[in-house]
Amino acid sequence: MTRTYEGSGVDQAGADALIPFFAKQAARTKRLEVVGDVGGFAGGFSLERLADLGYRRPALVVSTDGVGTKVEPLRAAGRHSTAGWDAVAMNVDDVVCVGAEPLMLVDYVSVERLDQDVVREIVTGVADACATAGCSLVGGETSQHPGLLPPDGYDVVATCVGVVDVDRAWGPDRVQTGDEIVGLAATGPHANGFSLIRALVSEGGVPVPDELLAPTGIYCRALLSAAEEVPVHAAAHVTGGGIAGNLSRVLPDGAGAYVDRQAWPRPGWMELLLGWGVAETEAYATFNGGLGMLAVTPEGEALVRALAGRGVEAWVVGALEGPAGAHLR
Amino acid sequence: MTRTYEGSGVDQAGADALIPFFAKQAARTKRLEVVGDVGGFAGGFSLERLADLGYRRPALVVSTDGVGTKVEPLRAAGRHSTAGWDAVAMNVDDVVCVGAEPLMLVDYVSVERLDQDVVREIVTGVADACATAGCSLVGGETSQHPGLLPPDGYDVVATCVGVVDVDRAWGPDRVQTGDEIVGLAATGPHANGFSLIRALVSEGGVPVPDELLAPTGIYCRALLSAAEEVPVHAAAHVTGGGIAGNLSRVLPDGAGAYVDRQAWPRPGWMELLLGWGVAETEAYATFNGGLGMLAVTPEGEALVRALAGRGVEAWVVGALEGPAGAHLR
Repeated sequence: MTRTYEGSGVDQAGADALIPFFAKQAARTKRLEVVGDVGGFAGGFSLERLADLGYRRPALVVSTDGVGTKVEPLRAAGRHSTAGWDAVAMNVDDVVCVGAEPLMLVDYVSVERLDQDVVREIVTGVADACATAGCSLVGGETSQHPGLLPPDGYDVVATCVGVVDVDRAWGPDRVQTGDEIVGLAATGPHANGFSLIRALVSEGGVPVPDELLAPTGIYCRALLSAAEEVPVHAAAHVTGGGIAGNLSRVLPDGAGAYVDRQAWPRPGWMELLLGWGVAETEAYATFNGGLGMLAVTPEGEALVRALAGRGVEAWVVGALEGPAGAHLR
Repeated sequence: MTRTYEGSGVDQAGADALIPFFAKQAARTKRLEVVGDVGGFAGGFSLERLADLGYRRPALVVSTDGVGTKVEPLRAAGRHSTAGWDAVAMNVDDVVCVGAEPLMLVDYVSVERLDQDVVREIVTGVADACATAGCSLVGGETSQHPGLLPPDGYDVVATCVGVVDVDRAWGPDRVQTGDEIVGLAATGPHANGFSLIRALVSEGGVPVPDELLAPTGIYCRALLSAAEEVPVHAAAHVTGGGIAGNLSRVLPDGAGAYVDRQAWPRPGWMELLLGWGVAETEAYATFNGGLGMLAVTPEGEALVRALAGRGVEAWVVGALEGPAGAHLR
């Protein structure tokens, strides 16, 4: 008979034992603006320095997301740190789409049963990605859900707060006819379309191939830095809905844009999925097609060079012209 | 054979159909500081008005949390809006513990299969709670996880961003010998200890009684307002770890405090759990014991009156004195 909290499958002592580790991970992502402990929080984020950083009319934007069903093949492959990394990637690169700088992030990890080693790997991935994105990990939660997730299962959700000057925000109102579209190379399917991938491999009875599980590319820092040299009018994070679905969100009403599939090399993992019988239209509407981020700019080639100088491969893949809507051709 | 995203259990059209509903829910929680659409975000939160609101050295704090395994009995009882409400309550009342005002919130709802009605109810609960807490719902995510949650199962996670003046933040450094402890009445066990509750009822073969599923109390607005009349030095949200476990986090090093169990009426739901054979010590270390929030103040009775005037029942339940640590007696 269960009469204690511990007996019901919750390891409170184990969760407490992780706290110093979490603090260490948070510490290595600490920006200057993070002010020591504010009560029980890993850190408060001082807004006093925003003016020094050049923000005149700062506004906050917030993104929250997880890694969808990619979490299960990552778990099965023991790639727990990638689950943490990807949860960060999904959010920091949503925030950058309005030209915002990711400032701070919190993570939520739910586990069926607490395995301290697994949680440590997940949070290490979170902190690695935060350091890469230049945002501070300022807190998080580990929540034990006995019986409500698959055996040994977990989920990872991250929330990122970014800041943008409202007068300089990117978006549809800045996009003009004649602008070019630059596509930034994806590292794999990132964290989208995995319900379909899981269905395909489960029919084949094989595990998800490694090349589909690569950590999601993080573009925010390179893109914001490149945008200091070359004007960027809008950006679209290529997630669910693919290239056309996400590009359409940053087009002004009635504007048309095309992306030319011949403009960049189709990655091997896309060939793999097509080889499994996914129709080309379906594949490009579900997966990123090899472009993790799109940037709309008046100077495509200059932006490609600026990104290359920051280690990000990119191509001019389309332009603002043609019939209304976003068209992949 | 599954060759399409839709066929793999993901209802993208259904998710898209919910977007106008989400926008309406966000709209009814909109604070003055929320500036229209910033790109794809429901709203950016302008920081320009913070100075007008009296913030001289503003710092942000962020909290992220869900409702733990309370989500499953809520789902089974069809109380989906309570799942959304509770996810908000867990966070806004963490944020207020440093004296911070909750500004904005995002929600993340993962579902095994998309049921639009259920998601609508969850998000209605989120928006109701945001309106009650005075914070703006500025975005969210609905994530479909076929096969990774119980049939019809879901999880709800919320993240709240609050602001506090660092010079006026509440916390252990302001707590003094002689301070009194005020306990604010809980509405039930809130969203903690449900793995134990689920284990107890599953042995009995009965559903979780309604009185254990009441929506979690939201204290932040009443407490911040009362604190304008009566000084508050620290506050502790009574969540996992119970009264002593959470009170101990706001005590200065070496300080002692007691809470007297005779100082407030033991609620019926605590009697119920004790009647099921949970030892008293275990019950008070796992559940909130009837106090959802603790406030440390030099003027206990005055704070109790100020809270009563704002519709919150409270009692002076203890004081800062005695041997180091937090003691329930």
